[in-house]
Amino acid sequence: MTGRPAGPRLRDTLSNPRADRVRGVRALAGRSARRRSGTFLVEGPQAVREAVRFAAEDVRDVYVTDDARVSHPEIVDEALEAGLYVHPVTDEVAHAMSEDAQGVIAVVTARPEHGIDSLPSDSTLVAVLSAVRDPGNLGAAIRVADAVGADAVVLAGDCVDPRSPKVVRASVGSVFHLPILRAAGIAESAAQLQEAGLELVAADVSGTAELGAETHAMLTGRHAWVFGNEAWGLTESELASMDHVVRIPIAGHAESLNLATAAAVCLYASRFARG
Amino acid sequence: MTGRPAGPRLRDTLSNPRADRVRGVRALAGRSARRRSGTFLVEGPQAVREAVRFAAEDVRDVYVTDDARVSHPEIVDEALEAGLYVHPVTDEVAHAMSEDAQGVIAVVTARPEHGIDSLPSDSTLVAVLSAVRDPGNLGAAIRVADAVGADAVVLAGDCVDPRSPKVVRASVGSVFHLPILRAAGIAESAAQLQEAGLELVAADVSGTAELGAETHAMLTGRHAWVFGNEAWGLTESELASMDHVVRIPIAGHAESLNLATAAAVCLYASRFARG
Repeated sequence: MTGRPAGPRLRDTLSNPRADRVRGVRALAGRSARRRSGTFLVEGPQAVREAVRFAAEDVRDVYVTDDARVSHPEIVDEALEAGLYVHPVTDEVAHAMSEDAQGVIAVVTARPEHGIDSLPSDSTLVAVLSAVRDPGNLGAAIRVADAVGADAVVLAGDCVDPRSPKVVRASVGSVFHLPILRAAGIAESAAQLQEAGLELVAADVSGTAELGAETHAMLTGRHAWVFGNEAWGLTESELASMDHVVRIPIAGHAESLNLATAAAVCLYASRFARG
Repeated sequence: MTGRPAGPRLRDTLSNPRADRVRGVRALAGRSARRRSGTFLVEGPQAVREAVRFAAEDVRDVYVTDDARVSHPEIVDEALEAGLYVHPVTDEVAHAMSEDAQGVIAVVTARPEHGIDSLPSDSTLVAVLSAVRDPGNLGAAIRVADAVGADAVVLAGDCVDPRSPKVVRASVGSVFHLPILRAAGIAESAAQLQEAGLELVAADVSGTAELGAETHAMLTGRHAWVFGNEAWGLTESELASMDHVVRIPIAGHAESLNLATAAAVCLYASRFARG
């Protein structure tokens, strides 16, 4: 905890919802305020707890209501133990900071994003998400990647900001658990992943192989799952750069799955293939 | 198409965003207006197309902008062929009706909901969702159930209204594809499902069996997956009424999956077990 000033970390209660500090936190819902301040917002007890546990050195401030402190004493205890500033806030202040935080909010320093060249060289399972637009989908997909023990998530092309509050919230803190790397697009991702020895497996309705028994062997090796944009998927040339293109079987009248549920089915198929 | 008045079904363009009709459509975002009118709102080209294809007899009106008509000519063609009223609307009117419709909106009669006693007797795979609160989660879970070819979805206990616009939108029209049945709670669901010869398999972190190789045999037979509330899961007594309780393996630092992704992993495990 070097670099932090000495002194008590539990601060005075904040009670003025119109204070500059409160407005500043609220503003982090917007991308421009995040860029300007170099920080982002973490909402809700689960996500804040994970930030405190996995990224304490980046947590600038924790805000917590009395009720939330009673419900989640471990968050305050762990934050103080890590030398973090904890600010009790009134319900009104918490609500002015965020309507989706259940009384627990953190402001976290946004470290510079890492490129795909930072991919851990011993990676065995990676999720590549291309041009994802929906923050809830992105957060849920990151949570799934975390849950199967993926080594990294790669955001290829123009994706929604992974530090937007909706992504962080939908990930339930998984954004703090595994590396989230940036790539210019699928071409750069494919080159780096293949160099690292991972096979590329796209999930796409055009797939010639159907996920299931026939993909079992393919998924036992080191590989990266590649998922396209929610609306338009992957382009012909992107699909041509893959080692395999796999379709998820659809039995009913649905045409497809959403990104997060498709990622869940595919990544867990890898998990199960590895036994 | 009995009972529909004769005459041209393609109506005059609606251009006044403050007209009573427009306000009436907008109001269907709220539960009380849905109850009062006995109708609900369907937003977006995909969901409206599925309503026209699978529930034409319940579609009262289709509203479509010029741009959307060019992008999705099949919706208007099929609606007119089914004898439905199609109203061209200005962009302003479409936006006044819904901000999430991409220019295509339908108002659909809400048939009385069916209870679990309407479960098809030859059902082999059913999804039971207990006390689901998040409409996006519910819609995505219904979409997954549709995609694996489940015979029905059962909503047990106090769930979010499946006719709320967010559920219909997140289901991308799957709400029109398979029966969505109501049950008072897990007890009533369990009794009816077991009477129909289905085994009950709960997905719960407390499960003694881990989803994967060891559940393969269990999932080859006729069964219903049971999913609890997003926050508190299933109660002890609800779990005690199950034939099996299965946990999804979690390898990383995530504690769990969200409802829709958990449903995707479990229901597809059933799909794959059946080959």
